[in-house]
Amino acid sequence: MASAIFVQSSFPSKSLSESLNTHFFPSFKLPVSLSFKPRTAFWKRLSVRAGLIEPDGGKLVDLHVAEPELKKREAASLPRVKLTRIDLQWVHVLSEGWASPLAGFMRESEFLQTLHFNSLRLDDGSFVNMSVPIVLAIGDSQKEMIGASNKVTLVDSDDNPVAILTDIEIYKHPKEERIARTWGTTAPGLPYVEETITNAGNWLIGGDLEVIEPIKYHDGLDRFRLSPVELRQEFERRNADAVFAFQLRNPVHNGHALLMTDTRRRLLEMGYKNPILLLHPLGGYTKADDVPLSWRMKQHEKVLEDGVLDPETTVVSIFPSPMHYAGPTEVQWHAKARINAGANFYIVGRDPAGMGHPIEKRDLYDADHGKKVLSMAPGLERLNILPFRVAAYDQTEGKMAFFDPSRAQDFLFISGTKMRTLAKNKENPPNGFMCPGGWKVLVEYYDSLTPSDNGRIQEAVPA
Amino acid sequence: MASAIFVQSSFPSKSLSESLNTHFFPSFKLPVSLSFKPRTAFWKRLSVRAGLIEPDGGKLVDLHVAEPELKKREAASLPRVKLTRIDLQWVHVLSEGWASPLAGFMRESEFLQTLHFNSLRLDDGSFVNMSVPIVLAIGDSQKEMIGASNKVTLVDSDDNPVAILTDIEIYKHPKEERIARTWGTTAPGLPYVEETITNAGNWLIGGDLEVIEPIKYHDGLDRFRLSPVELRQEFERRNADAVFAFQLRNPVHNGHALLMTDTRRRLLEMGYKNPILLLHPLGGYTKADDVPLSWRMKQHEKVLEDGVLDPETTVVSIFPSPMHYAGPTEVQWHAKARINAGANFYIVGRDPAGMGHPIEKRDLYDADHGKKVLSMAPGLERLNILPFRVAAYDQTEGKMAFFDPSRAQDFLFISGTKMRTLAKNKENPPNGFMCPGGWKVLVEYYDSLTPSDNGRIQEAVPA
Repeated sequence: MASAIFVQSSFPSKSLSESLNTHFFPSFKLPVSLSFKPRTAFWKRLSVRAGLIEPDGGKLVDLHVAEPELKKREAASLPRVKLTRIDLQWVHVLSEGWASPLAGFMRESEFLQTLHFNSLRLDDGSFVNMSVPIVLAIGDSQKEMIGASNKVTLVDSDDNPVAILTDIEIYKHPKEERIARTWGTTAPGLPYVEETITNAGNWLIGGDLEVIEPIKYHDGLDRFRLSPVELRQEFERRNADAVFAFQLRNPVHNGHALLMTDTRRRLLEMGYKNPILLLHPLGGYTKADDVPLSWRMKQHEKVLEDGVLDPETTVVSIFPSPMHYAGPTEVQWHAKARINAGANFYIVGRDPAGMGHPIEKRDLYDADHGKKVLSMAPGLERLNILPFRVAAYDQTEGKMAFFDPSRAQDFLFISGTKMRTLAKNKENPPNGFMCPGGWKVLVEYYDSLTPSDNGRIQEAVPA
Repeated sequence: MASAIFVQSSFPSKSLSESLNTHFFPSFKLPVSLSFKPRTAFWKRLSVRAGLIEPDGGKLVDLHVAEPELKKREAASLPRVKLTRIDLQWVHVLSEGWASPLAGFMRESEFLQTLHFNSLRLDDGSFVNMSVPIVLAIGDSQKEMIGASNKVTLVDSDDNPVAILTDIEIYKHPKEERIARTWGTTAPGLPYVEETITNAGNWLIGGDLEVIEPIKYHDGLDRFRLSPVELRQEFERRNADAVFAFQLRNPVHNGHALLMTDTRRRLLEMGYKNPILLLHPLGGYTKADDVPLSWRMKQHEKVLEDGVLDPETTVVSIFPSPMHYAGPTEVQWHAKARINAGANFYIVGRDPAGMGHPIEKRDLYDADHGKKVLSMAPGLERLNILPFRVAAYDQTEGKMAFFDPSRAQDFLFISGTKMRTLAKNKENPPNGFMCPGGWKVLVEYYDSLTPSDNGRIQEAVPA
């Protein structure tokens, strides 16, 4: 792997980031992260270990075939299933072992364990975490067309063969139950549901994947899409003795930077010699009003150019998973996938993977459930969960700082909505909230959107 | 415990039973239990063990206090929470250790683990199964009235103190999420939801229970309500080396008897010397169109008087839990509670704890998911799951027999609806379907219901 694909070489960086756009969100809510004790109380109890965390199941899954041309010929003779854009993202995720030890789209046994237990039992009786169903839907006619075949070829939108699914199992797609158990609601308007489930087929097809060639998107960002193997190689090359991961889905600001810097400082205090930050923006499907990946990467670049982060201790890469917006259920997936990428510390904020309730005037999830559920989740025992400390804009200092309840009136909570409104109106946030270069990208992004007839912003197609 | 409370002494018995009214149900569906391989393939792999299975957590919880009078005085000085009929049933369940190691109404940590993982992690890192939330809801005014108190007194409908809840934790009652994750749907019309959640308070109160006196119902059936401790004593008195449990919620017929007899035969073939049947009708809340407990007990009595079962190898007792009708989620609770009562074999049928979808024309759950989920459930590894063999009325033999697909046309599947219609119309089922005495009770029950104005049967209040 060329070093060029690592962000720190193209992003001389100083600033720091995280996705959960959480501790800046609703200004009317008090920060509560202090009241929750994580399972490990880790700062005190952890002993320092050398080496990277083992992947789930002991071995990273790699589903790419050894002889692509041979497979292409086999693929030509099999029944075909066309993949949607999001299906293809899941093939990508599976192919590189983010979901290790899962070796393909879920069969019913894995699907049911995921829905009911958020975990899969291995042959030795141990559990790995698996909280979101990674499944492939097909319709009645496709099922009929497949008939008694034991394999199918998965093709992309141009009918190019992408993979062969072998030893297949076709089973009913219980949509309502899948939605209820994954999201904890069946309210209409859940983005991933409307995009991938509502109009999907009544059957799910599971099996083992044989991926013909590595998935590429040719969007100028493939160089940022490091596989778990590549990330692990990079962490080892740097002699990391701790890797702390940040899931990102939003622009980053100086509150994130503060948190990152502080996390690294504390890891060093604990005795780690070389903690490495995995700055890991999500690159798959996101909802229409999220900032698209390409703009987020531009924003991250500018923020990093400001030099808050040390390139020597930061790896920026794209996490290829689509986004469910399934709160406490999904945050487990985000954490589990990072174990497979070599991270043994995971930072979790307020309301991770959360969103507003689609039809009621409230958040869909309790903002504290995410970190609580994460700290209890089967299969994540080896991962050290780091709950966010709440940062806000300290008006006396003119910079982002950890919230101090004893002088609450000094702090300004800038919500995501507020930030968006400012950027849309080309106004500036308070000094020290975000570096000027990063802010400029945000303003440019909103400027690029054409207001539609009803005055609402026409959102760009998500990356 | 007086031997009089054991059914076999008052029920000289021969016939056998089970609740799930399943393998007789929809005649248009083919039986499929043969296609599913249970985790253990138990008939071959199990070795015969002596002694009763350990309760979850190693020790049966008993929440009754040593000094009732002292506790009553303490109770008088505390804030009060009034229990509904179903709350009281849960106090009963908890007090006797059916939910061991749970020692009271769930705090948020247990509630979240139940919703997301259907299991609770113990201090030693192991899991016990816990699939339905056992929670107590209170309203805003009750929460305010409790204030900063660390304890509350739970009182019955006559304001008599029942228990003290100590070290309390009050947390939000996320109704929609609780319903979605427990039932896999949020459709209106779920009986337990409408009865206990929809109009319940917005808060849940958890804590440890101190139960002042054993819960009694004074309905003539208390003698059948054996606690897990009493059941274990009885199994030990009989030198049971295997206990196989039947969850019952419906009248029993000869198909159940066949299955029971056959299960016992197979356990003996495996080398067990004294397998004991726990015939265990559910005694808590059931929906309005289920046959009430008192009538079911009468029916069971008549069936048993016919002498199909050997009193020496059968214990009939009432399971005090309310019914959720939550299918694959609830069947885990039914199984787990029986571990605590000493059962190491659990018989599971088609669509356990299932019902029709409240607003769509289909079953709420896939009929096979119950036994599949049960066989995968964390914390139930020690329990041997016995999937039903499908029985039906063999018209060539004039009796209930295991279904033989090679001569499907000989078999008659008698659905629950069909059975009910026959009983309502005082018609007889085919000879050999149910003993005449048991059938007569059913007919009497439906005769006791007064048709309402719209011609529909007015169902009696469930037991």
